Amino acid sequence: MMNDLMHFKIDPIILNALHEDITDMDVSTKILGSSETLATVELLAKQDGVLSGMAVFERVFTLLDAKISIDWFKKDGQTFTDGEMLAKVHGDVEMLLTAERVALNFLQRMSGIATATHNMVEQLSGSNIKLMDTRKTTPGLRMLEKYSVRVGGGNNHRYNLSDMIMLKDNHINAAGGVKEAIKLAQERSPFIKKIEVETENLEMVKEAVAAGADIIMLDNMTVDEMKVAIDLIGGRSIVEASGNLTAENIKKLKMLDIDYISSGGITHSAGIVDLSMKNLTLTNRVETL
Amino acid sequence: MMNDLMHFKIDPIILNALHEDITDMDVSTKILGSSETLATVELLAKQDGVLSGMAVFERVFTLLDAKISIDWFKKDGQTFTDGEMLAKVHGDVEMLLTAERVALNFLQRMSGIATATHNMVEQLSGSNIKLMDTRKTTPGLRMLEKYSVRVGGGNNHRYNLSDMIMLKDNHINAAGGVKEAIKLAQERSPFIKKIEVETENLEMVKEAVAAGADIIMLDNMTVDEMKVAIDLIGGRSIVEASGNLTAENIKKLKMLDIDYISSGGITHSAGIVDLSMKNLTLTNRVETL
Amino acid sequence: MMNDLMHFKIDPIILNALHEDITDMDVSTKILGSSETLATVELLAKQDGVLSGMAVFERVFTLLDAKISIDWFKKDGQTFTDGEMLAKVHGDVEMLLTAERVALNFLQRMSGIATATHNMVEQLSGSNIKLMDTRKTTPGLRMLEKYSVRVGGGNNHRYNLSDMIMLKDNHINAAGGVKEAIKLAQERSPFIKKIEVETENLEMVKEAVAAGADIIMLDNMTVDEMKVAIDLIGGRSIVEASGNLTAENIKKLKMLDIDYISSGGITHSAGIVDLSMKNLTLTNRVETL
Amino acid sequence: MMNDLMHFKIDPIILNALHEDITDMDVSTKILGSSETLATVELLAKQDGVLSGMAVFERVFTLLDAKISIDWFKKDGQTFTDGEMLAKVHGDVEMLLTAERVALNFLQRMSGIATATHNMVEQLSGSNIKLMDTRKTTPGLRMLEKYSVRVGGGNNHRYNLSDMIMLKDNHINAAGGVKEAIKLAQERSPFIKKIEVETENLEMVKEAVAAGADIIMLDNMTVDEMKVAIDLIGGRSIVEASGNLTAENIKKLKMLDIDYISSGGITHSAGIVDLSMKNLTLTNRVETL
Amino acid sequence: MMNDLMHFKIDPIILNALHEDITDMDVSTKILGSSETLATVELLAKQDGVLSGMAVFERVFTLLDAKISIDWFKKDGQTFTDGEMLAKVHGDVEMLLTAERVALNFLQRMSGIATATHNMVEQLSGSNIKLMDTRKTTPGLRMLEKYSVRVGGGNNHRYNLSDMIMLKDNHINAAGGVKEAIKLAQERSPFIKKIEVETENLEMVKEAVAAGADIIMLDNMTVDEMKVAIDLIGGRSIVEASGNLTAENIKKLKMLDIDYISSGGITHSAGIVDLSMKNLTLTNRVETL
Amino acid sequence: MMNDLMHFKIDPIILNALHEDITDMDVSTKILGSSETLATVELLAKQDGVLSGMAVFERVFTLLDAKISIDWFKKDGQTFTDGEMLAKVHGDVEMLLTAERVALNFLQRMSGIATATHNMVEQLSGSNIKLMDTRKTTPGLRMLEKYSVRVGGGNNHRYNLSDMIMLKDNHINAAGGVKEAIKLAQERSPFIKKIEVETENLEMVKEAVAAGADIIMLDNMTVDEMKVAIDLIGGRSIVEASGNLTAENIKKLKMLDIDYISSGGITHSAGIVDLSMKNLTLTNRVETL
Repeated sequence: MMNDLMHFKIDPIILNALHEDITDMDVSTKILGSSETLATVELLAKQDGVLSGMAVFERVFTLLDAKISIDWFKKDGQTFTDGEMLAKVHGDVEMLLTAERVALNFLQRMSGIATATHNMVEQLSGSNIKLMDTRKTTPGLRMLEKYSVRVGGGNNHRYNLSDMIMLKDNHINAAGGVKEAIKLAQERSPFIKKIEVETENLEMVKEAVAAGADIIMLDNMTVDEMKVAIDLIGGRSIVEASGNLTAENIKKLKMLDIDYISSGGITHSAGIVDLSMKNLTLTNRVETL
Repeated sequence: MMNDLMHFKIDPIILNALHEDITDMDVSTKILGSSETLATVELLAKQDGVLSGMAVFERVFTLLDAKISIDWFKKDGQTFTDGEMLAKVHGDVEMLLTAERVALNFLQRMSGIATATHNMVEQLSGSNIKLMDTRKTTPGLRMLEKYSVRVGGGNNHRYNLSDMIMLKDNHINAAGGVKEAIKLAQERSPFIKKIEVETENLEMVKEAVAAGADIIMLDNMTVDEMKVAIDLIGGRSIVEASGNLTAENIKKLKMLDIDYISSGGITHSAGIVDLSMKNLTLTNRVETL
Repeated sequence: MMNDLMHFKIDPIILNALHEDITDMDVSTKILGSSETLATVELLAKQDGVLSGMAVFERVFTLLDAKISIDWFKKDGQTFTDGEMLAKVHGDVEMLLTAERVALNFLQRMSGIATATHNMVEQLSGSNIKLMDTRKTTPGLRMLEKYSVRVGGGNNHRYNLSDMIMLKDNHINAAGGVKEAIKLAQERSPFIKKIEVETENLEMVKEAVAAGADIIMLDNMTVDEMKVAIDLIGGRSIVEASGNLTAENIKKLKMLDIDYISSGGITHSAGIVDLSMKNLTLTNRVETL
Repeated sequence: MMNDLMHFKIDPIILNALHEDITDMDVSTKILGSSETLATVELLAKQDGVLSGMAVFERVFTLLDAKISIDWFKKDGQTFTDGEMLAKVHGDVEMLLTAERVALNFLQRMSGIATATHNMVEQLSGSNIKLMDTRKTTPGLRMLEKYSVRVGGGNNHRYNLSDMIMLKDNHINAAGGVKEAIKLAQERSPFIKKIEVETENLEMVKEAVAAGADIIMLDNMTVDEMKVAIDLIGGRSIVEASGNLTAENIKKLKMLDIDYISSGGITHSAGIVDLSMKNLTLTNRVETL
Repeated sequence: MMNDLMHFKIDPIILNALHEDITDMDVSTKILGSSETLATVELLAKQDGVLSGMAVFERVFTLLDAKISIDWFKKDGQTFTDGEMLAKVHGDVEMLLTAERVALNFLQRMSGIATATHNMVEQLSGSNIKLMDTRKTTPGLRMLEKYSVRVGGGNNHRYNLSDMIMLKDNHINAAGGVKEAIKLAQERSPFIKKIEVETENLEMVKEAVAAGADIIMLDNMTVDEMKVAIDLIGGRSIVEASGNLTAENIKKLKMLDIDYISSGGITHSAGIVDLSMKNLTLTNRVETL
Repeated sequence: MMNDLMHFKIDPIILNALHEDITDMDVSTKILGSSETLATVELLAKQDGVLSGMAVFERVFTLLDAKISIDWFKKDGQTFTDGEMLAKVHGDVEMLLTAERVALNFLQRMSGIATATHNMVEQLSGSNIKLMDTRKTTPGLRMLEKYSVRVGGGNNHRYNLSDMIMLKDNHINAAGGVKEAIKLAQERSPFIKKIEVETENLEMVKEAVAAGADIIMLDNMTVDEMKVAIDLIGGRSIVEASGNLTAENIKKLKMLDIDYISSGGITHSAGIVDLSMKNLTLTNRVETL
């Protein structure tokens, strides 16, 4: 999965975060003066979770100081429990302290999303339904968040507006109906793209099937409505269910012949997994210039 | 408060988000062809909350198309309830549809933080304790998030590592003790900065007071420990309490003579406030070139 | 089509070109001194062609000087003939002269691609075959070039590597065969993407059909091979023909039941359409500061 | 010549092209999963030509993955024939596949320009006339294109508007005549710059010589007019011939006492040289994290 | 002269300076709250000088707040005396205060250079010698500084390393001598560039003249040496004198037949002209949102 | 001190300067052709001074060519005398020549500020008064200039507008008085910031002390006024003196009980320290590709 986060894509994001956190210098680490002192500090879990973001975490340190190195005891996609040591970071003590918060801010958020995804995927176990994300991601961090969804066992819906044709209520409204919207999409949009339609009732489902939608989203329907919709579709389109999912809902949905469930919450409201850098120890002291 | 979000600071953030969401074009709105059609769409609350991010929301639209305009019915800092209409957005229908998700992604997150802050500030009402944020913000969005904390009635702790001297466990560890760390800060760091020390026990509090810390943070102490700490400090430093705050904790803390309580959760785990753009209506149709 | 070239996407491209052409100032226009003199200059065709790039041409001028205005006599997608006047540009004479070359460099290249596309589309008239571009575009100008293909009546194949799954010889080689490659794509790549396979012989076509490829490209096959391939596919996949197309080839291909023909040449070797800015006339002279 | 393409100048151009071709990830190479597999792939010529762009081609790969290495069998400026192997590229198979198109897009275009230049320079052999480029280059790639002109044996005319004083028809028009334009240039423009004047008839040539132009361009003149013009100039200015050059024209021009011939076509309409990456072979397979 | 400082060139410089001066907000102007209050503030000279940088000064304000306007009483190139009012700035009081320092930092430095240039040009009055700058400018501000030299009555030497061939001691050393260096430049460098040679003694001058240098710089020679050098050159090259100029030197140099004197000091050590924004008056108070 | 100039902060500044000095290539070093020749060149002082900017100087070379190396004989903060060799730079001769001016432009300016600071600090020796800088720095180079102030033995006042609350004449004016301004700052600005007030007379000093200003600046007061002011303050605030300092002034100020003296001149009018790269020697010649 590492290759999904290529340096030339994530470096600008990380540099931006470092510039945000350091206007000119870290006034606190100045207390340590100019002598180069090596230290090791531990990355500890303060909560159970699924790790996501090793490459980003590590790159925060090495963009600041190429000589910092990390020993990892877990890797992306693995679960950890409260108290576990996930990694040890070695390097100049000032640089370790300076990078700490930015590195954690990335790792905690990414792991939070992987964990939320993982938990919801677990609730779907035993069914063939796959979990999918949405575009309800944090502005500027979509690549990292969709990566974390994959790390947590989820699937990615479209990356952005250029990625796929998705006809939602407002598009259908503007086009004058489901049938009209799909027809226009088939005529005017790139043929290499699949077409998905968001439906709110059975009438819309019928129109979407008839017009040849590749994917039909059942938006905020009751379980009973969904059952009828799935029968109407009859395997001719991929079926996606969406709406505010709860533990309750999901149990019932598991019985249905749905292909995908999409959840905005796994990205927009996951919250972080609490991680901490602790137990700093000085390993040796080297005189600088 | 509008002036806190100057265009030259937020434009790069918004443009970055637009580039993230549009690789080359919005393949879905292409169904609407090239005729310029004007529309109005409503911004509705689907949950109670506090509004934050008007300027950002509006700028997403106008950076995409300068002719889009918005009528606001609420402003930053005001509360709204589920179902309320917050604004009406007018402009070319394609541009409205293209900007929708990015604009909402900003506004939902910012309002989420303002709302979480507002709720915690309410719990502190009746006391003189002020609520404060931390640097546990989303990489790249700190300015917007700290603004939302203010909008929600909270206060900003330091903006970044250059903003203030904050001596945490790892600094103290590296310096060889509380007293040593403060002394080095007084000698080596800019005199225009206040010095805050994070203390974990009463011994550290004593040292910090003796060495002249401007602000002392009581980190994860029990209420009883805090009481003693506050007595030890005796008004000679500003007192900040920190740690994982719950509704329970906060009630007890309200009785104490604390100046500030800081909370990472109001930024790192606030979750969004659900907002939606609905009821698109075409207002007139203009033939384009 | 104008909306496909949103300002926030093309401005960085244009500014980059202006910076490339002006290190610090235009040393030639300095001869005109500091008095502001208004002028009009004509944009003339020196060759037949199809116009593409009005929005870019105009933006070069207005990014340099917001007061410049243009009257257009043709619009994107329309044909013109040698000698026709396409537009008149009005504004400060210095700024007109300074922007001229950059503006023409964009318009000539974009119109060159639209013209080459248009010419090849004409050769396909009478068939149902559609013309399609490739990723063989000029680095940095893909959005403008793929836009020009649409303007010329062509269709866009995938925009970039993130846009669609396309399994070429080297992928198939690395995966161990056509069947294996498609199977891995179905398992590991986002389900929202269509899968295309590049085939070089009938065996590969058979495998691709059997494995369920959405699109099958017949690469450099003879007309006879293509006929067999099309029969093998039997409508189960979209059929794309590719290879070095000549006027000869195309005639024969028109008889076949192919959906798309893709051509790298319409972007990578189109050459420019010769356009020129001529007949500058001073309209009035205004004293500056 | 390598030093002419310094990393700090070409890296932004290459990164821009990589960002253009990869929104978030290469969805096709995801089929190869996360195991790191090494491979070698050959760069083959599918056409005769002159190589240009080794440094750019190589940098595309190494900016994506610093561990990729290339063995070159030709270098910039050398000719190659259809079928020749130009290089072997070694590295992680996914990264090779991901970088392929962008790397080729640069190399094919640069080699196309070097080849077109080389061919026209050959036609001038036996004379003392030198071939020169213009500013009719691709926006954003001028440095690479002018480099390729040099690689092909041509010479560079001015790099951009800041580089030299060049008085064209519109400048002369605005200044009120050739003499007036040159006089103003001598007074108002930096003395370190040479002054070139574009002339369309013998009267303008006379004025330009009299006023002391450093270089006189004979624009679209007949061979007979040029002969007279060259006599009028009598060695007092450098002589440049320009206009739409054909194989016919050039033969006749070779007899004349011209210093330079400038050609827009070698950059704006060169077309690519067809190159291909073929024969991928897996060299070994390494298990990743 | 205004056109020399085109917005697309100076905006990035100004935005960079604003970002440098404002991390997230101006904490001092926050005292004024959120009510929009209009004010006028005067730009006063606290020293005699020559104005340079109106366009930059004004753009600092308008990039921050497009509604700010300025009435100018002097323009670039005009002299002013201690105490004079140069301009009045009108707009929102917070924005005026926030922009003040950045705007002054530009204007003071630019006017400092114009003033230093003006003063040295005055010392040359009565002779035909022109004053010229060097590349000893502030990194990042060269365009503004070379503009200020022109504003002060000076001339620009080459803008940068790409602008002209200048053979200095180290080049001559590496090439093996003056003659060799010039010969190589004539062969290998673009013919459109003039060639200047830096000479330190009469032998070098002789070689430079013989080899056909366009410009010969006499570096740190005595007045007597210069006299001989000028005779040796005999009008065949432009003559530039350089070295640490004093009021003493200059008087003597004025007698010589030199074309140009170049001075690094007018850019690298000019010092600022003291300007100040004073007498802020509130003009009216408007309630904000 | 090296860590104060982290690569990710200074690289953009240096790259900007390199881009400014090289449009496409160094036309002068082209005389040396394409053979890679190694050389050594000396960095010599042509004036006494204090060194500042080693890291920046070195990075200019290595960003251009990673193989260049430097032997330093002095380090930042050390004094040197006219004629001393400060460093030897080794590498490809073309790259040495190309980087020379940009590297020197940084080092000369930074050393100029360190030297000016050092000289003024010396004048304060024997007193407890510390020297401080201002925000009157060169736009875009503040980090380097404030670093140089520290290197020269000075102290940094606030870095920028976000760093500290500083109430100057215009703020006080807009707020309606010293007392009002301080009160508003205490209410509305972040509590983690110290508050400084600029006073112009004793009345203002009294108000500032009474209102609890952390730091009081005595602006342009006479020595006698300052004496009274210091008595009024009576140790309750830090005391800063400001105004146009001369050797005369400073002697008198040394007698006073002032904490800090701030000087704009050490950054805005320091002038450079003259440094030069001389005695280039070719060490060996290597044939390139």
